Amino acid sequence: MEKWDSSAGTSAFHMPEWMIQFADQKQEFNKRPTKIGRRSLSRSISQSSTDSYSSAASYTDSSDDETSPRDKQQKNSKGTSDFCVKNIKQAEFGRREIEIAEQEMPALMALRKRAQGEKPLAGAKIVGCTHITAQTAVLMETLGALGAQCRWAACNIYSTLNEVAAALAESGFPVFAWKGESEDDFWWCIDRCVNVEGWQPNMILDDGGDLTHWIYKKYPNMFKKIKGIVEESVTGVHRLYQLSKAGKLCVPAMNVNDSVTKQKFDNLYCCRESILDGLKRTTDMMFGGKQVVVCGYGEVGKGCCAALKAMGSIVYVTEIDPICALQACMDGFRLVKLNEVIRQVDIVITCTGNKNVVTREHLDRMKNSCIVCNMGHSNTEIDVASLRTPELTWERVRSQVDHVIWPDGKRIVLLAEGRLLNLSCSTVPTFVLSITATTQALALIELYNAPDGRYKQDVYLLPKKMDEYVASLHLPTFDAHLTELTDEQAKYLGLNKNGPFKPNYYRY
Amino acid sequence: MEKWDSSAGTSAFHMPEWMIQFADQKQEFNKRPTKIGRRSLSRSISQSSTDSYSSAASYTDSSDDETSPRDKQQKNSKGTSDFCVKNIKQAEFGRREIEIAEQEMPALMALRKRAQGEKPLAGAKIVGCTHITAQTAVLMETLGALGAQCRWAACNIYSTLNEVAAALAESGFPVFAWKGESEDDFWWCIDRCVNVEGWQPNMILDDGGDLTHWIYKKYPNMFKKIKGIVEESVTGVHRLYQLSKAGKLCVPAMNVNDSVTKQKFDNLYCCRESILDGLKRTTDMMFGGKQVVVCGYGEVGKGCCAALKAMGSIVYVTEIDPICALQACMDGFRLVKLNEVIRQVDIVITCTGNKNVVTREHLDRMKNSCIVCNMGHSNTEIDVASLRTPELTWERVRSQVDHVIWPDGKRIVLLAEGRLLNLSCSTVPTFVLSITATTQALALIELYNAPDGRYKQDVYLLPKKMDEYVASLHLPTFDAHLTELTDEQAKYLGLNKNGPFKPNYYRY
Amino acid sequence: MEKWDSSAGTSAFHMPEWMIQFADQKQEFNKRPTKIGRRSLSRSISQSSTDSYSSAASYTDSSDDETSPRDKQQKNSKGTSDFCVKNIKQAEFGRREIEIAEQEMPALMALRKRAQGEKPLAGAKIVGCTHITAQTAVLMETLGALGAQCRWAACNIYSTLNEVAAALAESGFPVFAWKGESEDDFWWCIDRCVNVEGWQPNMILDDGGDLTHWIYKKYPNMFKKIKGIVEESVTGVHRLYQLSKAGKLCVPAMNVNDSVTKQKFDNLYCCRESILDGLKRTTDMMFGGKQVVVCGYGEVGKGCCAALKAMGSIVYVTEIDPICALQACMDGFRLVKLNEVIRQVDIVITCTGNKNVVTREHLDRMKNSCIVCNMGHSNTEIDVASLRTPELTWERVRSQVDHVIWPDGKRIVLLAEGRLLNLSCSTVPTFVLSITATTQALALIELYNAPDGRYKQDVYLLPKKMDEYVASLHLPTFDAHLTELTDEQAKYLGLNKNGPFKPNYYRY
Amino acid sequence: MEKWDSSAGTSAFHMPEWMIQFADQKQEFNKRPTKIGRRSLSRSISQSSTDSYSSAASYTDSSDDETSPRDKQQKNSKGTSDFCVKNIKQAEFGRREIEIAEQEMPALMALRKRAQGEKPLAGAKIVGCTHITAQTAVLMETLGALGAQCRWAACNIYSTLNEVAAALAESGFPVFAWKGESEDDFWWCIDRCVNVEGWQPNMILDDGGDLTHWIYKKYPNMFKKIKGIVEESVTGVHRLYQLSKAGKLCVPAMNVNDSVTKQKFDNLYCCRESILDGLKRTTDMMFGGKQVVVCGYGEVGKGCCAALKAMGSIVYVTEIDPICALQACMDGFRLVKLNEVIRQVDIVITCTGNKNVVTREHLDRMKNSCIVCNMGHSNTEIDVASLRTPELTWERVRSQVDHVIWPDGKRIVLLAEGRLLNLSCSTVPTFVLSITATTQALALIELYNAPDGRYKQDVYLLPKKMDEYVASLHLPTFDAHLTELTDEQAKYLGLNKNGPFKPNYYRY
Repeated sequence: MEKWDSSAGTSAFHMPEWMIQFADQKQEFNKRPTKIGRRSLSRSISQSSTDSYSSAASYTDSSDDETSPRDKQQKNSKGTSDFCVKNIKQAEFGRREIEIAEQEMPALMALRKRAQGEKPLAGAKIVGCTHITAQTAVLMETLGALGAQCRWAACNIYSTLNEVAAALAESGFPVFAWKGESEDDFWWCIDRCVNVEGWQPNMILDDGGDLTHWIYKKYPNMFKKIKGIVEESVTGVHRLYQLSKAGKLCVPAMNVNDSVTKQKFDNLYCCRESILDGLKRTTDMMFGGKQVVVCGYGEVGKGCCAALKAMGSIVYVTEIDPICALQACMDGFRLVKLNEVIRQVDIVITCTGNKNVVTREHLDRMKNSCIVCNMGHSNTEIDVASLRTPELTWERVRSQVDHVIWPDGKRIVLLAEGRLLNLSCSTVPTFVLSITATTQALALIELYNAPDGRYKQDVYLLPKKMDEYVASLHLPTFDAHLTELTDEQAKYLGLNKNGPFKPNYYRY
Repeated sequence: MEKWDSSAGTSAFHMPEWMIQFADQKQEFNKRPTKIGRRSLSRSISQSSTDSYSSAASYTDSSDDETSPRDKQQKNSKGTSDFCVKNIKQAEFGRREIEIAEQEMPALMALRKRAQGEKPLAGAKIVGCTHITAQTAVLMETLGALGAQCRWAACNIYSTLNEVAAALAESGFPVFAWKGESEDDFWWCIDRCVNVEGWQPNMILDDGGDLTHWIYKKYPNMFKKIKGIVEESVTGVHRLYQLSKAGKLCVPAMNVNDSVTKQKFDNLYCCRESILDGLKRTTDMMFGGKQVVVCGYGEVGKGCCAALKAMGSIVYVTEIDPICALQACMDGFRLVKLNEVIRQVDIVITCTGNKNVVTREHLDRMKNSCIVCNMGHSNTEIDVASLRTPELTWERVRSQVDHVIWPDGKRIVLLAEGRLLNLSCSTVPTFVLSITATTQALALIELYNAPDGRYKQDVYLLPKKMDEYVASLHLPTFDAHLTELTDEQAKYLGLNKNGPFKPNYYRY
Repeated sequence: MEKWDSSAGTSAFHMPEWMIQFADQKQEFNKRPTKIGRRSLSRSISQSSTDSYSSAASYTDSSDDETSPRDKQQKNSKGTSDFCVKNIKQAEFGRREIEIAEQEMPALMALRKRAQGEKPLAGAKIVGCTHITAQTAVLMETLGALGAQCRWAACNIYSTLNEVAAALAESGFPVFAWKGESEDDFWWCIDRCVNVEGWQPNMILDDGGDLTHWIYKKYPNMFKKIKGIVEESVTGVHRLYQLSKAGKLCVPAMNVNDSVTKQKFDNLYCCRESILDGLKRTTDMMFGGKQVVVCGYGEVGKGCCAALKAMGSIVYVTEIDPICALQACMDGFRLVKLNEVIRQVDIVITCTGNKNVVTREHLDRMKNSCIVCNMGHSNTEIDVASLRTPELTWERVRSQVDHVIWPDGKRIVLLAEGRLLNLSCSTVPTFVLSITATTQALALIELYNAPDGRYKQDVYLLPKKMDEYVASLHLPTFDAHLTELTDEQAKYLGLNKNGPFKPNYYRY
Repeated sequence: MEKWDSSAGTSAFHMPEWMIQFADQKQEFNKRPTKIGRRSLSRSISQSSTDSYSSAASYTDSSDDETSPRDKQQKNSKGTSDFCVKNIKQAEFGRREIEIAEQEMPALMALRKRAQGEKPLAGAKIVGCTHITAQTAVLMETLGALGAQCRWAACNIYSTLNEVAAALAESGFPVFAWKGESEDDFWWCIDRCVNVEGWQPNMILDDGGDLTHWIYKKYPNMFKKIKGIVEESVTGVHRLYQLSKAGKLCVPAMNVNDSVTKQKFDNLYCCRESILDGLKRTTDMMFGGKQVVVCGYGEVGKGCCAALKAMGSIVYVTEIDPICALQACMDGFRLVKLNEVIRQVDIVITCTGNKNVVTREHLDRMKNSCIVCNMGHSNTEIDVASLRTPELTWERVRSQVDHVIWPDGKRIVLLAEGRLLNLSCSTVPTFVLSITATTQALALIELYNAPDGRYKQDVYLLPKKMDEYVASLHLPTFDAHLTELTDEQAKYLGLNKNGPFKPNYYRY
C-alpha cells in the first residue's frame, strides 16, 4: 500500500539518487544481511492488522512448536505435501478468514462468475510473491477459478498469516510461507515456487521485485516462456523501469501501481481516513482546534488535509510545486514554509516522498507535546536519525509511540519512528485491497491473452479500459447505477459505448 | 471560459460528429448568415458582466449615435486614426476600468516587471482576436511592455466593451472592435488587423479560431513569417487538431486550453462558486435541503457537487464513466440513473459535454417548480428544442429565467435557455481571467523565443514548467510561500530545483 | 429579517444604551423629521429585491403619474374604495406575484386547508403593519381564510410593492400603502387602518412597533378590546420589553422574533447562503484562497464562517464570549484579535451586534482592495462615519459598492455603506419568509384563542409546541418524513406523542 | 461521558418511566445483587482506555497477588495508612501518568496558579466518588492546592487505575478504591470515606449519585454541615431532581452535567470524532460511499452526521422532533423513517436516548454485513435482547464485535452489544475530561463560597459566568485570543466587560 506521492512520482523518470543506489544493490542468496532496508522501501503490512490477526491466531497457535516449517513433514487432507507452511492444521481457521474476506471483495467474486465460462487463464502457470493474507487468498483462488495454476511465496518475512497459508495449502495451492521467516527461508521459499520439476511458470505476479530478481539471477532462461510480469509496488516498478532503461527487460511488464483507481484509493481516499485513524489509535488526541502542518499536497496530502479540516483542525500546507501550492490555496489552506509555523503547530505530518523534510532544527523548535508523523513514501521524510543523540531521551509510551525528551523537559511525540503511519498504526480497508487485487487479476488476464505484438519488452500501464473495468466491478458495493450512452450520444462524442471514456492524459 | 468536461475532453481524439461537421463548415466573408452557430460553440461572455458594464457605460454612452463606427472619422489625442472603435471619447472611462483590472491581475503586472528588461517579445508582431475587455487590455499592454507590436479584433460581436476599446485606441493600439458588430463588420475588423501595408504579423493569438481561419483563407502566404499560433478555446483547439490531422497545419500551435492551471480554475474552482452564484442571481432560491441531481462528475460536476453539498443540498450524480462514478461514491454522492430521481429533485444540472442528457421525457416527469440548467460544454445537454411545442407555454419571468408551463399547470424553471449558466448568469472572476491571460502571454513568449526545431507543425500543450510558472506568479495573491528544494533533496528526487516537478501524466 | 446576534441578544435583558435612547425618542405625527434613523434599526427590505420588482413594475408603471395616492379617487372592481394604493389597475400583475409566492409558501397554504374548517380566527379583527410584499399578501389572505378581518399599512416607506398592494385592494383588503410614502403619509396610512368608524381591531400584528406606538399615543382606549400583539422585529420586541418593564404593557404580547425556527433560519441558515450571494453580486470576487476575518461567532457568524470555509476561504474569527470562542476553535477557525490579522485579510465581515467593531484605525491598516461589510444587527458595527473625512475620496463603483480611497491610492471596498449586506445586496429566500409568516399566523391564532389567564400583560415567546408545529408544516417541502413515537416510547421518555419534545432550555 | 440527547434531555422534566423506576430502586448495603444495571445508566469508562492502561499496568502488576486490598496492611512512605488501594508500591508509575495528564489539563493547572493565593477552598472537606483516573487525580490535587481536604472512593467497580490510586495514597490522599471491587467492597469504600472519626465532609462531589444516596441512607445528619453537592452524571442529576421534587433535597446541588461547555464537548465535538474512531477500531471499515442511517439528530446525532458526511458517507437521518428534523434537512441530510432505508444501509447508528429504536423487525430486514451500533444514552436503543433467540447464532469476532448470524447466512455486525460505542470502543480525549474536571472544581468553589441565601435547597445549573470561565481557561490550549469589550461597547450592549455575555436562554 505504498504512497506514491507527487514528488516521489517523478522519480521513476528522473532516476533519483536513492533509486540508483537501490539498483546497484546486489542481492544474493544467503548473503543479504537484513530485510530491514528492503522493507522500508517495499510494502510492509500494517502492524496493527498483524496484531489483530495474531491475537486471533493465538486461538489456534496455542500448541505452536519451535520447529522450522522447513523441517516438518506435513500433508494436507488430500495427501499432498507440495507446500511449506507453519501448521497445516490451522487450515480451518484460515478458511473462515478467507470466507469473510470473500464477502468484502465482491469484484473478484464477480470476476469469477463472469469469466469462469471462458477460463481466460486456462493454461496460465503463475508464480506469485506477495503478502499472504486472506485477501491474497481470495485473489489466488480467483486466479485458480479462471483456469490458472499458481505457486506462491511471501514478499515479506513478517506478514504471512499462517492460518491463511494453511488453508491455501489444504485447498491444494503450493504455498511456501510463514510468519517469521529468516532471510535464508525467504529466498528458499521463492526458490521452491520457481524451481519445480515438470512445471515452469509463464506469468509472474510480484510485489517488490524480489521474485523477478531471483528469476533473473538464477533462472534467466525461464523468461523464454514467461508472457509477462505484473508488478504492484513502487519499488518493484522502479526496478522494472531500471531494467527497461538498461535494455535488460526481456518480457512485457505491467505497472499496476499507477492505475488511476489504485492510485486514488491507495492515496487520496485511503489516507483521508487513515490519517485520523492512525492519530487516534496512537494518541487518543482530539482533532478539533488543533493546528496541523501537512508537508506536501499530493494525493496523500490532499487526503490528510481534507480529513483534518473536516474534523475542525486548522491546517497549514507546505509545497515545492507551485501548481499543487495553488490547489492548496484554493482548497482553503494557508501555504507556508515549515519554519513559519513550526513553533505553533500541534501536529506535523509529512507526505512528500522527499527526505529530511523535517530536520533536527525543526524538531528543536517544536513546542512541547507536538506530534510528528509520516504518511509519505518512506521513513526518510523525518530525520529520525538526528534524534538518536545522547542529550535526548527516548521513552516508549505505547506501541508505535515514542516520547523524545529534550533536556529542558520538552517532549515530542514521534509515531511509528517516522515510518508510514497508515501502515504502522491503522489498517488498510479490505475494499482498497480488493481494488488492488482486481487490478492484478485483470493485468494478468490482459498480458496472458494479449495477441503477439501488443506488448513489447517494456513497462506498461494498465489499459484505461481495464482500469475502468476494475472501477465498474466495484460499483455494486455502493449500489451505484451507471448511465449508459445511447448510440446517438456515443456517436456525438466519438466514443465507444463501453469505453474507454477518457483520453490517457485525463486528470480525474 | 469553456467547460471542457470529461467526455467532451475525449473528443479531440476521437473526432466526434459535431466536430467533423464543424470542420466542414465553409466560413466566408459576407456569406456567413449568422453568428448564432458560432457563438454556441465558441466562447461567449457573461451576460451579467455585460450588463454591469453597460450600466456603467450608460454614463458615457448618453450621447451615443447610431452611426456605424466604420463610417466615423476618429483620431486619438496623438492624432492617430489606425483603429476603429465606437467612440474614442470614452477612453478615459475605459482607462479606469483597465486600472482596476490591473490591480486584480498581479501576475501579468509581475511579468511586466520581471521580463521588461530583456523584452522577450521584442520584434514580435502579434495579431489578436479575443473578447475585448479590461482584462484583455491588461494582457495587450503587457505584451506591449514586453516588446511586442499588437493589432486586435474582437472574437465575438457582442462582447466588446466600447470604453475599453477606446482606451486602447487612445493609447495607440490599433483596435478594431465594438459592441454589436454585424457579421460583415466582424470579418472586416479581422481583415483590418491583418491586411496592413508595411506590417505583417509573426504571431497569432486566437480565441475560437476565426482569425486563424481568415488568414488560412485569405492570406495563406502570411504563414511563412508566422512563428506560431496560441489558441485558447475548445473550439479553436479542435479546429487546430483537425488541421494537424489533415496535414494542413503549417506552423506550431500551442493549445493553452488544456494547461493544468487553466483547466482547474476554469472548471473545478470557478464552477464551485459560479453554480451557487448563477442559481442565486436567477432564482433567489435557498440551497439548504434541496435535492439536486448533477449529470456528469468531471471537473465541472465535481465543483458543482462540492459547493451544493457544502450549502446543505442533497446531491445525486449520474455518470457514464465508472472511474468518475467511483469517485462520486467516495465523495459521498449517490450514483443514480437520471430516471430514478427525476420525479423528486428540485434542481437538475447538466455538466457532461454530451447531448440530450435531459430529454423531453425527463422534463415531462419533473415535479412542479423544478429548476433546470446547464453548466456543461454547450447548449445541447438539455433538449430545449423539445420544449418548443404548442402545448407548452413559455413565460419569461426575469432575464435568463423562463417558466415552461405544462397544460396541467406544472412549471419548469429553465435557466439561460439551456446555455451555460455560469457564463450567462454569473460573472467570471478576474482571477480566473488572469490565469488565462498569463498562460497566453507565456505561450506567446515560448513560441516566439523557441529555438528552431523545438516545435514542429503540430499542436502542443504548454510545457509543464511554464504551467508551473503561471501558478507561481499567482501565489503572491494568496500570500502563499513556496518551499524550495535543498540541493540534497533535489538530487534525492532527481529533480531540477526549479521544476518541472511532476511527470507529464501526473493527475493533480 | 434582522440579525439577532449573540451580543445583541443580551440587550433585551440588560437594557443597553441605544435601546434606552430609542425608548426615549418621542415619535409624533408630522414631527418626525426623517425615517432614516428608524430604518437603520428596523427592518429594511432587500435593495436588489426591490430592484427586480421595480423592473418588473416598469411594465405596469409606464403610465405612472405623480399624483399622490392620497389625492386619487380609486375603486376596485367591486366598487369598494376603502383602501389607498398607488394604482388599483396594477392588481392583475400583483395577483400573479402572489400566486407564485403561494407556491413557495406551502406551510401557509397547508394551514389554510387544515384550519379552514374551524375558522380559528373567526371574529378576529387584525390591524397589521408590515412590509407589503407578495409573501405578506399570502399571509394576509391566509388570515382571511381563517376567518379574520384585516386592515393593513406598511412598516417601511420604501418597501411596498405597489402591484401587490393593488391586488390586495382589488380582493377587498383595506390596504393603505405605496412605495415612496412621505413621513406624513406613513402615519396617515397607519391611522387609516386604526381609526375607522364601526370597526375596532382586537389583534395587532406589528413589525417594528410603529403601529403599536401609534395606538398607544392616539387611541389608548382601544387596548381594552385588544387581545394581544404579535411583534416580529428586534426593535419592536425591545420596545415591548421596555413597556413591560415600565409596567405599561396593557395586553399580552408575543415575541415571535426569538422562536427557534425563525432564529435558525433568519440567522444561521439564511446567512450561510446570503454572505456568499451578497459578496458575489457586489464584487464578483472569488472566494477560494481568500483570507477573511469574521467578527462575532453567534448564529450569523457561524453561518458566514461555514460557507466561506466550504468555498475555500481561510477564515479567522474574533469573539468576546469565551464559549463562542471555544466553539470557533472546535469548528476549525483561528481565534484572533482583529489587530493581529487586519493587515493581511482580504475581507472583513462584522456580525456582532456591537458598535465600532471595525474602527478607523483598523481601516487605515487594511491592505489595498480589502472588502469590508456588515452582516450584523445594525450599521454601527463598522465606523463608517470615520471615513467621511476630507483626505479620503469616496467613489461609487456600483450600486451598493463604494471605493474609499486613501491619499496613497489604497482603496477599501465598502459594501452597502456598512448596512446589512444580506438585506442590501442579496435577497431573502421565500422559504425563510414563509417560516416567519407561518410563525406570525400561529402566534395570532394562539393569542386570539387562548383561554383567559393563560397570558398576562407580558411579553411571551411562542409556545414550543407551536414552534414545532411551524417546523412540521415546512417538512413536506423537503419530502422529509418524521418518525412517530410509539406509545411505549412516549411513556418511556415521559413525552406526549405530539410534543413538545424538548425542555425550554434545549439549545438545538 | 454520558450522552444527553435531545429526548433524554427532556426526561428530567417530564419524569419518564425509567427514571421513576430508578428512583424506586432500594439500594442497600450488601443487598444490591449486581452493578450491571447501574453501570448501564451511570458512566462507565472506555473499555479501550482501560485496556491500554492495563497493558501499561502489567509492567507493575507482575507481582500482583490475589489478596483483597481490604485485607492488606499498607503504609505510604510517610507512614500513613489511611487509604486502601491495590498496591502502594505502584505509586511511582501512577505519578508519571498523573504528570502526563497534567500537561493536557492546562485549565486546572492555571486554576491552581490563579486561585492558589486566596485558597478559595480553605476549610473545605470534600468527599468524592468518581472514576479514579489520572485526570481525576489532577482534579483532586488541584482541589488540595486550593485548600481543600479530600477523601475519595470510586464510582465504578472496574474503572479504577490502581497505579493512580497508589500515587494519590502515596501523596497523602485517603483513597479507597481498586479495580475489580465487589459490590460489598464498593459500599465499604464509600463508607470509609464518610464515616471517619474527627472528620466530617462539608462538600460532596458525586458521579452517579451513589455517594449522595449513601449519606442520605446512613448519615442523614451529616447534611447539616454540608454546603452543597456537585453532581456530574445524567443519572445522579435525575436522582437529585427527584429528591428536589419530593421536597427531600436538604442542601443546594449543582448540576454540572448541563453546562453549555460540558454538553457541547461531551456530545457534539467529542462524538464527531469518536463515531469514526469507534467504527474504525472495531471494524476497519472504509467510510467513503457507505450508506448510513443515524437515528436522532440531537447534539450526538449532529456530531455523527457531520463526521460521516465529511468522510464521504451518504447519511440519512430519522427524527421525531420537527425542529431537529428541519435542521437535518438544512444540513443536507435526507430525513426518512427507518423502514424506508433499513434494507439498503451499511451502518445503523442510534443516538436518540429512546428505547427500541432499532427493533428485531428492523434487524431482520437489514442487509448482510450491516453494522449496528449505539451512540445514545443507554443500551436500550437497539433491542439487543430480541437477538438472543435460538435461531440466531452469535459469533464473537473481536473484542466488542459480534456477528449475529441468521439461518440464511446473513450476518449483522453488532458493536459493543448495543452499549455506547464511544465509551466501549474509543477513548475520551483528555481535553474533554479537562473541561468536565474544571467545571466540577468551579462548581465546588462556587457552592463553598456562595453567600448565604444565594442557593436554596434546590438543583442549580452552573452560573453562566462560571461556564464562560471554564471556556476561557481552555482557550490558551488553542492559542486563541479573546477580544475585550471597550467601555463604550460594554455600555452600548448593556454588558459587564467580564461577562456573562449572553442571556440564559441563548442557544449557542
